[in-house]
Amino acid sequence: MTSDIPEVVINRLPLYARALTTLAAAGETVVSSQTLGEQLDVTPAQIRKDLSYFGRFGKQGRGYNVDDLLDRLREILGLDRSWSVCVVGIGRLGQAILEYDGFAQQGFDTVAAFDAAPDVAGRTIQGIEVRSMDDLEDYLTSEQVDIAVVAVPAEAAQAVVDRLVESGVHAILNYAPISAHVPEGVSIRQIDPVVMMQGMTYYLKELAPNAS
Amino acid sequence: MTSDIPEVVINRLPLYARALTTLAAAGETVVSSQTLGEQLDVTPAQIRKDLSYFGRFGKQGRGYNVDDLLDRLREILGLDRSWSVCVVGIGRLGQAILEYDGFAQQGFDTVAAFDAAPDVAGRTIQGIEVRSMDDLEDYLTSEQVDIAVVAVPAEAAQAVVDRLVESGVHAILNYAPISAHVPEGVSIRQIDPVVMMQGMTYYLKELAPNAS
Repeated sequence: MTSDIPEVVINRLPLYARALTTLAAAGETVVSSQTLGEQLDVTPAQIRKDLSYFGRFGKQGRGYNVDDLLDRLREILGLDRSWSVCVVGIGRLGQAILEYDGFAQQGFDTVAAFDAAPDVAGRTIQGIEVRSMDDLEDYLTSEQVDIAVVAVPAEAAQAVVDRLVESGVHAILNYAPISAHVPEGVSIRQIDPVVMMQGMTYYLKELAPNAS
Repeated sequence: MTSDIPEVVINRLPLYARALTTLAAAGETVVSSQTLGEQLDVTPAQIRKDLSYFGRFGKQGRGYNVDDLLDRLREILGLDRSWSVCVVGIGRLGQAILEYDGFAQQGFDTVAAFDAAPDVAGRTIQGIEVRSMDDLEDYLTSEQVDIAVVAVPAEAAQAVVDRLVESGVHAILNYAPISAHVPEGVSIRQIDPVVMMQGMTYYLKELAPNAS
C-alpha cells in the first residue's frame, strides 16, 4: 500500500485528522468535504480523492461521520499508539524542543537526548538526561527509538543523520538548515523557518518592488 | 510575473540559493544541474525547468556560474535587502525565536515583539522590548513590518492572524498548530513539527505494523 500513495497525500492526512479532532471536540458529528475543505484551504474534490486511496468514507451527499473518519485516519497514520523520540543537539533550540509539551500530548514521547558538548551531556532537562554523542549508537541499538529530532549546527547535521540512519532510525525531523540526505526507506522532514521566510519575500518584493 | 509561477517553484528557490552559497564558500565557480540536484534531491530537469521561469541561466553542457546564479536568485527572492520582522506571542517558543540568531544572519531583522500577558509585556529580550497586544495595530500602522511570526496558542492564533492582516502585514510565519486563513494577496507558511511527525508515522507503521 505504501508505495502507491503520493507522499503529498500522506502529508495532508494529519491536517484532516487535526480538523476532525477540533470538530469532534465541538460536538459535530457529521462534516461535508466542502466544510472540511474550507477549514483547510483544500478543495472538496481533493479531500475526496485523498481519502479514496484508503477506501470508501461517507455517503454521497451525506458527508462524513466525524468520529468514524477520525478513528480511521488515526489508525492509517498510526496515531492510535505512541512513538518514542530522541533529540540530538541540546543547544537553545534542542532545549526548547525538550521543553515543548506539544509532542507528548500527541503521543510522541521523548525518551532520550544527546549532545556533543561535555558540559551539556550529563545535565537533566525536563526529566530527560542528556547523553554524550559517544553513546548514540549504543543507545539506539539497545532501545526503541522511532523518530530522531536533529537540532545540531548545520555543519554537523549530515554526519548526525548518517549515524542515526546507520543505527536503524527510520524517521528524522531535521531542524538544521541543510538539505540532509537519507537513503530510500527512511523518512525525513526539514523544518527551516528561514527558507520559509525566503519563499515569502518573493511575494513581498512583488508588492513593493522599489522599497528597500 | 508573480501569478504565473507556481508557489512550489518559488519555495524551492531558497534551497537553490542556500546550496549555491555553500558552493561559493567552498570556492566552486561552476555547478551542473546534476550536481545541484544531487545535493537537494531534486532532478536536474526540475532545476532547469524551475530556473527557466526567470530567463536563461548557464550554457548547455557548461553548467551554471555559481556567483551569477546566486546573485540572480537573491535578487529574484529579495534576499539582497533586509526585511523587518515582528514576533507575536512571547511564551517559551516566542522567546526561543527572539533568541535565535539565524534570522538576522539572513537579513530578517526582528524589530518588535508582542504578548498579551501583562507580566511579559514590558520585558526586554535580546534587546527587543515586548509590547502589549493592545499596541499591535498602532505599531503596525506606524512602523514598517514585513513579516509577522505568530507563536501564540492555537485558540488565539486565527484572531491574531486576522489582526495582523487588517494592519497591513502581507507575510506570516505561523507556529501555532492550526491551519490559519489569510485572504488572497497575503502569504502564510505553517511550521508544525507535530504534523510533520504524523506524516512520518504512516511510513513507520508500514515498516513494523505489529509493533506497539
